[in-house]
Amino acid sequence: MSTEIIAIGGYEEVGKNMSAVKVGKDIVIFDMGIHLDRLHIHEDTYIEKMHSLDLIERGVIPDDTLMKDVDGKVKAIVFTHGHLDHIGAVAKLAHRYDAPLIATPYTMALIERTIKGERKFKFDNPLQVLNSGEKCQISPEITLEFVHTTHSIPQTVTPVLHTSEGVIVYSNDFKFDNHQTISPPPDYQRFRELGEKGVLAAIIDATRAAEPDQVKTHSEKIARIVLEDIMEQPLKEDDGIIITTFASHIERIQAICNIASKSNRQLLLLGRSMERYCSLAENMGLLKIPENASVYGSPKAINRALARANEKRSDFVLVTTGHQGEPDALLPRIANDKTLFEVQKGDNIIISAPIIPNPLNKANRNLMERRLKGKGARIFTNAHVSGHAGREDHRDFLRMLQPQHLIPSHGNLGMLTAYAELAEEEGYRLGHNIHLLRNGQAQVFNKEKK
Amino acid sequence: MSTEIIAIGGYEEVGKNMSAVKVGKDIVIFDMGIHLDRLHIHEDTYIEKMHSLDLIERGVIPDDTLMKDVDGKVKAIVFTHGHLDHIGAVAKLAHRYDAPLIATPYTMALIERTIKGERKFKFDNPLQVLNSGEKCQISPEITLEFVHTTHSIPQTVTPVLHTSEGVIVYSNDFKFDNHQTISPPPDYQRFRELGEKGVLAAIIDATRAAEPDQVKTHSEKIARIVLEDIMEQPLKEDDGIIITTFASHIERIQAICNIASKSNRQLLLLGRSMERYCSLAENMGLLKIPENASVYGSPKAINRALARANEKRSDFVLVTTGHQGEPDALLPRIANDKTLFEVQKGDNIIISAPIIPNPLNKANRNLMERRLKGKGARIFTNAHVSGHAGREDHRDFLRMLQPQHLIPSHGNLGMLTAYAELAEEEGYRLGHNIHLLRNGQAQVFNKEKK
Amino acid sequence: MSTEIIAIGGYEEVGKNMSAVKVGKDIVIFDMGIHLDRLHIHEDTYIEKMHSLDLIERGVIPDDTLMKDVDGKVKAIVFTHGHLDHIGAVAKLAHRYDAPLIATPYTMALIERTIKGERKFKFDNPLQVLNSGEKCQISPEITLEFVHTTHSIPQTVTPVLHTSEGVIVYSNDFKFDNHQTISPPPDYQRFRELGEKGVLAAIIDATRAAEPDQVKTHSEKIARIVLEDIMEQPLKEDDGIIITTFASHIERIQAICNIASKSNRQLLLLGRSMERYCSLAENMGLLKIPENASVYGSPKAINRALARANEKRSDFVLVTTGHQGEPDALLPRIANDKTLFEVQKGDNIIISAPIIPNPLNKANRNLMERRLKGKGARIFTNAHVSGHAGREDHRDFLRMLQPQHLIPSHGNLGMLTAYAELAEEEGYRLGHNIHLLRNGQAQVFNKEKK
Amino acid sequence: MSTEIIAIGGYEEVGKNMSAVKVGKDIVIFDMGIHLDRLHIHEDTYIEKMHSLDLIERGVIPDDTLMKDVDGKVKAIVFTHGHLDHIGAVAKLAHRYDAPLIATPYTMALIERTIKGERKFKFDNPLQVLNSGEKCQISPEITLEFVHTTHSIPQTVTPVLHTSEGVIVYSNDFKFDNHQTISPPPDYQRFRELGEKGVLAAIIDATRAAEPDQVKTHSEKIARIVLEDIMEQPLKEDDGIIITTFASHIERIQAICNIASKSNRQLLLLGRSMERYCSLAENMGLLKIPENASVYGSPKAINRALARANEKRSDFVLVTTGHQGEPDALLPRIANDKTLFEVQKGDNIIISAPIIPNPLNKANRNLMERRLKGKGARIFTNAHVSGHAGREDHRDFLRMLQPQHLIPSHGNLGMLTAYAELAEEEGYRLGHNIHLLRNGQAQVFNKEKK
Repeated sequence: MSTEIIAIGGYEEVGKNMSAVKVGKDIVIFDMGIHLDRLHIHEDTYIEKMHSLDLIERGVIPDDTLMKDVDGKVKAIVFTHGHLDHIGAVAKLAHRYDAPLIATPYTMALIERTIKGERKFKFDNPLQVLNSGEKCQISPEITLEFVHTTHSIPQTVTPVLHTSEGVIVYSNDFKFDNHQTISPPPDYQRFRELGEKGVLAAIIDATRAAEPDQVKTHSEKIARIVLEDIMEQPLKEDDGIIITTFASHIERIQAICNIASKSNRQLLLLGRSMERYCSLAENMGLLKIPENASVYGSPKAINRALARANEKRSDFVLVTTGHQGEPDALLPRIANDKTLFEVQKGDNIIISAPIIPNPLNKANRNLMERRLKGKGARIFTNAHVSGHAGREDHRDFLRMLQPQHLIPSHGNLGMLTAYAELAEEEGYRLGHNIHLLRNGQAQVFNKEKK
Repeated sequence: MSTEIIAIGGYEEVGKNMSAVKVGKDIVIFDMGIHLDRLHIHEDTYIEKMHSLDLIERGVIPDDTLMKDVDGKVKAIVFTHGHLDHIGAVAKLAHRYDAPLIATPYTMALIERTIKGERKFKFDNPLQVLNSGEKCQISPEITLEFVHTTHSIPQTVTPVLHTSEGVIVYSNDFKFDNHQTISPPPDYQRFRELGEKGVLAAIIDATRAAEPDQVKTHSEKIARIVLEDIMEQPLKEDDGIIITTFASHIERIQAICNIASKSNRQLLLLGRSMERYCSLAENMGLLKIPENASVYGSPKAINRALARANEKRSDFVLVTTGHQGEPDALLPRIANDKTLFEVQKGDNIIISAPIIPNPLNKANRNLMERRLKGKGARIFTNAHVSGHAGREDHRDFLRMLQPQHLIPSHGNLGMLTAYAELAEEEGYRLGHNIHLLRNGQAQVFNKEKK
Repeated sequence: MSTEIIAIGGYEEVGKNMSAVKVGKDIVIFDMGIHLDRLHIHEDTYIEKMHSLDLIERGVIPDDTLMKDVDGKVKAIVFTHGHLDHIGAVAKLAHRYDAPLIATPYTMALIERTIKGERKFKFDNPLQVLNSGEKCQISPEITLEFVHTTHSIPQTVTPVLHTSEGVIVYSNDFKFDNHQTISPPPDYQRFRELGEKGVLAAIIDATRAAEPDQVKTHSEKIARIVLEDIMEQPLKEDDGIIITTFASHIERIQAICNIASKSNRQLLLLGRSMERYCSLAENMGLLKIPENASVYGSPKAINRALARANEKRSDFVLVTTGHQGEPDALLPRIANDKTLFEVQKGDNIIISAPIIPNPLNKANRNLMERRLKGKGARIFTNAHVSGHAGREDHRDFLRMLQPQHLIPSHGNLGMLTAYAELAEEEGYRLGHNIHLLRNGQAQVFNKEKK
Repeated sequence: MSTEIIAIGGYEEVGKNMSAVKVGKDIVIFDMGIHLDRLHIHEDTYIEKMHSLDLIERGVIPDDTLMKDVDGKVKAIVFTHGHLDHIGAVAKLAHRYDAPLIATPYTMALIERTIKGERKFKFDNPLQVLNSGEKCQISPEITLEFVHTTHSIPQTVTPVLHTSEGVIVYSNDFKFDNHQTISPPPDYQRFRELGEKGVLAAIIDATRAAEPDQVKTHSEKIARIVLEDIMEQPLKEDDGIIITTFASHIERIQAICNIASKSNRQLLLLGRSMERYCSLAENMGLLKIPENASVYGSPKAINRALARANEKRSDFVLVTTGHQGEPDALLPRIANDKTLFEVQKGDNIIISAPIIPNPLNKANRNLMERRLKGKGARIFTNAHVSGHAGREDHRDFLRMLQPQHLIPSHGNLGMLTAYAELAEEEGYRLGHNIHLLRNGQAQVFNKEKK
């Protein structure tokens, strides 16, 4: 019996992640994400209403058409966490597989939201919640385990398949953060046990492997300290404070809530996706929104809230969408005078997000920042830490997990090969036990006879 | 009697150039340009219909309101060449001065075009043509001389003021190119003579001074060789050829014409500004367009031409606007399927222009190139040489001209100070005889008594 | 009566800081530093034995020869902190002035060490200790105050001159760190009081002003967290641990001591300058070295310690000099097999310092790291935070201090002008109340008559 | 029967190139180069006297020890051109194979020189000259053909193996230059014929594939124009002129000779390797050194020549080694006052070479340039064009040659994968018909049965 790892998406880009693992005839799919970058190439891409084949052609979702030629049966579709590059294509692709979706509770709640918004396809796959630390039998040959890890969204897991052919680890995405407040540290102990038991192959998030610094990724604790140091003085003064960050980054939003609640200001969480992620997280007990805070997602409610904030800005802290300067998001609209909030001298804009590096984001951010500064606002950038493992985290992970074979993923070729070079420093060898796959390619492992 | 150099625009940016020189009570203004970058900050900026004060507030044109406090009379408004950052604000600003406009013939023809498009202001300044190598008396105290130089548009001059207080040189913009076909080499001999006679002050184009390489700017001869090497093979084959370059760069367009006319293909020069600059240049005998070439500027004519080219692309060479990927220009519209020409596998796109470095251009170019490549086109970039002096050209110029005082211009602070450091290597000293001016500041030279 | 600020050194480079303030006929000198970079240009530069005029010619120490033409009398030479670019030229220059040296206790102890090493000049200036928060009368016209600030060496102060002509602040160097363990936060309250009282001029450390990020500099607290996260695992294992950092960075070394003392390992602080700075700091009660730690500075003692460590590396944590890879320092010598410690697979090298950006350091660090990795060591880089204010710290400082005039210093022209642009965002204007000085230039302030 | 391509060296670095092609039992080796970078890691590496196994361990020469496990017999060792990264290890490795060396005449002459310098090994392989355009039978199964190409050293060829299993092309190194004076343009016609006939696999120089610009590499004609423009003025004046370039770059040296010989100055070609390469090239009729020029290689002769030049610099043009600032080469020694030539104000230093990008070269060049400028010299950098194909040359080559399989070489992993991405744009696919090899790995092609 052989094991096969099939690279469907995310092996040539940061985005539209999807992989399949086939053991004998049983197949497990991991993740079904979208690639936001590709949306901008064609001006007429409306995801909700489009057919999956059109979206595949435009490179927006993974090209899973190859799966029809794979001799096997999909037994489960497993999701690691709730970011769109991991769950965003679920409504376009999952209905074609007669298999349950498996995810942690928060991830599953986000998947349900995505499915609800779909306008093209019907959907009736079973939804099966699995908590981190738990296992479930997927087929006679395969048991799935969710090992707890950390990332920039709650309830991220590293799924592990225990099969008759060996253990397969799908570690997409992760960072090693020992100081988050919502999530405990990663389950290093379990990774070490798996390593001792023996891991056949690991698929690993190589997103930051090409960054040359030999570092461990900064903990969220550092983002908290930075935000505290930045917010301390403005909170005491009468000036406006607007913070923008990833709506899905509940850990970060919690930190902002906690800092703001030391003042007398009211917190306003504003924006469609801000409402979506925060309400869910609050309902599930992950996010504790302060008593006098409000979350608004509808345009009308947002505008009313902004009008109030505009009257007495010293009474509020605004948390908005729009950290990339994307023209339709809230902060860029504020910057462009399209709301009732007028930015003025003394306002503090804290951008708790990096520029996701592509030319369009750079242009949008530049335009937004110039507009904000033109009105007299003060801007703080880079109040942020990454959610992806740094080179030295990867080295630690390899030493814990000791997989026989490595398949770098979640990146373009430069990132995957940078990971390969790192792994070669740890004794692996590209072309021997490090396998570079392109989207659509597969790696087969045949059990060695003894 | 004192001499004063007043920095009006272009001392904090590459754009909206305008300077004034005052000798006694007589004032000469140099250039009235616009700053294209600033147009994008406000979405509702329509130059033709706007008042100069609004454009000044938005940073689009030079703020010349300070001139009303200057005790003197403007005797002439002098233009160095026809680029928009030197003549683009003429229709907004010149009518307020009771003074003639002076320029070389091609520059003057472009000025007249600009004035004709104006919708807000009336205009009746006298227009006075002066050829390079000629002088004219501007006031009892001031004689203007046009010294021939080279740049990326024909008939560029370095104006020199001979005054009772000394010689003032306004060298904005220039490169030293000994191998252009339309223009002879710069008049080095005259620059040396002026240097020997004695120059009080020079205002100098520092645009490329911050580039670290110790080089002379490449000649247009090099662009010709590169274009020939690139075009040679495609011209022999049946594939499409589209070249995009600056519409005002007549020297470059001449080179493209010459190369294309060695084949049997018909040349189509397409785009509104392509038509504007090339027709004028042809009428004035500067540009020799091949017999079977056509120039189209109106949307209808362009589309008809593109439809013809689309039917048999091997019969044509297209030269279009849109080298920065700006969405409304022709090549980006072709890339975006908004014309009758369908880009297809085998088409060769030659971009004979750099990316003018700002985030918006980078995003636009990236989007255009991805779209073109997505359709199968092959792209050649960087088939270009700069029109601005390199560090070693500047050094040569300083050694020829030996001005007592230097005023770097045509750049942001980084560029001006990089020029200052270069000049310090040649024995000048910032704060002593190198003067950094910000827009709106002036430098006064009092004649030393003997 | 007029006030004059004279830029002697450090206005064209990061290094050899020296400034003078003249009020009437009374002069106060600030700092006398060296420029380490320039040492490498001539291969035969031996500081201790060379004459100041030779060192001046080679650009290694400030050119104070201009001071003999200044009409006034030096009343005091004041030092801000103990880094070599602020005190390193004291033995070459101070003896020529009949004036006391004034510094905080730790800075003064380091000055005494420097003087003791001098081989060329005799020295008998009085040494006067002044604590932060204290004042002393320097002349009838001038009172000196030491305002407490934070940097990357203990007992850094911002000297303030209270004069009949106004208040002058010399803020060279500083960061705003609220979380150091040895030093309390900067005395913001006093800066605000000075701002309200009125500050005539401030000389300000512009070293990091050219970094584009709109950030406050990270606190040492962040370095502590990063070091803890990196050291935690290796401390538990049997592998070697070598940390290299600035010998003068007592705060950082204290953090390392504290983390290491949670394990059973013995700490070895090794290297000539490590011994110099740490012993002094320990004697003065600034550094608490753990009980079982040892500090060795002599080659023989270092080698004996290394031999012991080599026998059982799991018993030790080594802290060494050599973070820039400079060939004669300890870590590069270890890397190059010139000591008794053999680097081997499993060793952890933690570089708690940036690469000070010049080509020689980059080459040395690259060579050292390749050698260490070639032996199997694991390297952690960038376990560091800066000691200089970021752009947003500068903005805060300007808003607190509100000086009438600004003189950026401690940087090359690019850094000084980047600071000027930042200050322009805060309402200042280059050439009006921001003054760019080159080494050897002066800025005069004449009291305005009412 | 199967064909195998064995990557021995140069697949993880730019340097120590060596590949083998095995057809049945017959093996052809291509190139035996050294890796100069690695020499600096160990301070005691003296190539001439060291054993090959030590040099292999230090990464200085290719690790060909794997060849003893290859089941076959080496029939020929073929060299493409005379650069050290292609022939430098010949004296260390070739004697172990019972096979002739085959190369073009100039390459062979350089190989003989290398062998003559060897102190460790005896050498008796037959030497067999083959001209470009010629073929020779290597074994019953294999015919070798030398196809003419262009590079930065004369008589560079692209060897082609015609075998019973298919055609193998080894294209390491090349550029496509249509305007060299010593060499005719590449034999495009032959490449196209091979493409039409069918090429099984091509090993291709990917050195510049990672440079993002979509360009063809500039021709030497452009270097000639740039050098003419730079040299024209200094040749007329009385100042010193020193040019430094690659000693092996005969085409460039010829251009310099030609330009200099238009003046009355005497040309001095100085330096050990300058003498070695130029004398050989002159003897073989490749280089025409002007009548009044001299070539000196011995320290004594160089010094005498420099003393003469120092007396009257306006009578000479010096061409020296040392373009990377390497401390023992001539120009750095001049800069460091170690010769009888004193650099002074007015001297022109023209560096007709890039900085080969590694930290040590950057540091050395920086130090040399600062020293030269400190003495008043004027420096021109980047008077250079590359010798390696640009991205669009590669695209042209692929379209001509149409190989079934591609093996990128001559670069680090980043370069090889950048080439792979380029080839994917042309319809190839990594992992399918593009093969990434690491040093020591092999790619096997089995003839498909029909």
